[in-house]
Amino acid sequence: MRTLAEIGEFGLIARIQRLARSQPRGQVVLGIGDDAALIRPRAGEDVVISADSLVENVHFRWNTQSAATIGSRALLVNLSDLAAMGARPLAFTLAMAAPPALPLARADGLLRGLLDVAAKHACPLVGGNLARARETSLAITVLGAVKRGRELRRHTPRAGDLLFVTGSFGSAALALARSEQRGTALRRLPEPRLAAGRALGRLPMRCACIDVSDGLLADLGHLLEGKPGGTALGAEIEPERVPVPRGFAASCAELGLDPESTALRGGEDYELLFALPARSAPSEERLSRRLGVPVRRIGRVSARPGVRGPAAGRGAGWRHF
Amino acid sequence: MRTLAEIGEFGLIARIQRLARSQPRGQVVLGIGDDAALIRPRAGEDVVISADSLVENVHFRWNTQSAATIGSRALLVNLSDLAAMGARPLAFTLAMAAPPALPLARADGLLRGLLDVAAKHACPLVGGNLARARETSLAITVLGAVKRGRELRRHTPRAGDLLFVTGSFGSAALALARSEQRGTALRRLPEPRLAAGRALGRLPMRCACIDVSDGLLADLGHLLEGKPGGTALGAEIEPERVPVPRGFAASCAELGLDPESTALRGGEDYELLFALPARSAPSEERLSRRLGVPVRRIGRVSARPGVRGPAAGRGAGWRHF
Repeated sequence: MRTLAEIGEFGLIARIQRLARSQPRGQVVLGIGDDAALIRPRAGEDVVISADSLVENVHFRWNTQSAATIGSRALLVNLSDLAAMGARPLAFTLAMAAPPALPLARADGLLRGLLDVAAKHACPLVGGNLARARETSLAITVLGAVKRGRELRRHTPRAGDLLFVTGSFGSAALALARSEQRGTALRRLPEPRLAAGRALGRLPMRCACIDVSDGLLADLGHLLEGKPGGTALGAEIEPERVPVPRGFAASCAELGLDPESTALRGGEDYELLFALPARSAPSEERLSRRLGVPVRRIGRVSARPGVRGPAAGRGAGWRHF
Repeated sequence: MRTLAEIGEFGLIARIQRLARSQPRGQVVLGIGDDAALIRPRAGEDVVISADSLVENVHFRWNTQSAATIGSRALLVNLSDLAAMGARPLAFTLAMAAPPALPLARADGLLRGLLDVAAKHACPLVGGNLARARETSLAITVLGAVKRGRELRRHTPRAGDLLFVTGSFGSAALALARSEQRGTALRRLPEPRLAAGRALGRLPMRCACIDVSDGLLADLGHLLEGKPGGTALGAEIEPERVPVPRGFAASCAELGLDPESTALRGGEDYELLFALPARSAPSEERLSRRLGVPVRRIGRVSARPGVRGPAAGRGAGWRHF
């Protein structure tokens, strides 16, 4: 079996340059091959920057996902951060580390996955570096652009705001449980809500937003935590309003999972969670049309810290999550 | 001994946020703590982006350098890439991986080294992520800014251009040899030639530039290789004109090193190597004044590929490096 050791660092760089040559250039003035790349922002735009990594045996395992799925995922989770800021992608850098014994087929698969996603979202690879290491890892920094004042910040909700989500929750947790119980390959990839994020940025009212990677309750906690040194808020949510995929209850039963917990606590769905002022928030229908994806209202922000939901029947008070 | 495992990922993030709070903000509109950071470019400027990593046992060893030196170095080598583009620093992201058993003192040392350099060069940390791994690594992406058209590209020299360098060569190789032979700590840090790079960008003539990380001959090769698919050039250099630090010959003798080879092939000096048109190039003296650092002419670009120097005495022909 051919391995990375056979072609070396420069061989892999040459492969990447070849693969990257057909990329969309977008606003890239100078790409791979110099001391640095050059990107030309448009007038009146801010640059958005975010970094996220996938490490072998922490974020992925070779025996449950194809190399292309892992590569795709590495860039998609970064693009999701741009979506949560209301930004559009500009370019990304890749710091890849791998053992010399890594099969070439895996290295190629990772790169193919990365560059397929890069092409689809017009986010070219513009630089990076390769290093020898005991584990494979992909550290990505993604750049985006957003019109000044149109960015979606995380720490701006106020008591009384309505809480909304895009898409549905629980699919990623279901896919993971299925893969673990049955040994099937994990193929599901997140769909970064880039168009929805930009549409939110164009709304005329205040909007606080976060992408849901750790689970709906966990990231709701992050949305409500306030600025560093500020006051934390709370929320009252209606768990039965949290959207789930078709056939969700049956799939959960089959795999022995609790549906509510899977939808509220399962991570990696990469949907958007956002808060809008109650007085001016558009209806679910209008939001769904504007964002191009189903939007559901799931609750509201409250001044009292902590996340609560209705207990058992209606009018039976609140329970804490 | 306290380790990373004790404070966990969120403990380390909190530490970083605390350390990073006193950073210069510069053009950073929104720093650490949201889904991404926001940076406001100035009108008429391009954004420069470059990535470089340090991996344990590949680029550094804990027993030869302090953690602060390693952290400082990780950012300095990235800033050197900005210098080679004629750019000024804007901000950086850090993807750090480390084993749970990493002593907290080492983690703190790395961060202190990084943030000291960040403060000195007005290049704030604006985001990143932490992951568990078997080896410690620091993957950095640095952003810079350069006026449109003032960037220094690598692949633009022409036959007949004069070759110049900043500073002196061989110190880093000497320091490494001393550390290896005597077991002393490696303390020497590169000084990214940021002001010199920007001054080169303001010169009215064409200037090709690279920072010398792999060694003078190796990076001269990169400067001459031409654009992908283009024609490679060559160079004639005068090795005796390559500047070395004071007492260099004696130090080399002491350590059993060949002075010429140490100056020409030793890496990690992070000086600038650049080519200017012979007809319009300023004198060494003028360049030294404008760049704020000693500049020496070391040879010229030739149409014939390969790097050559004079053999034995004058007029005795050329030898190939």
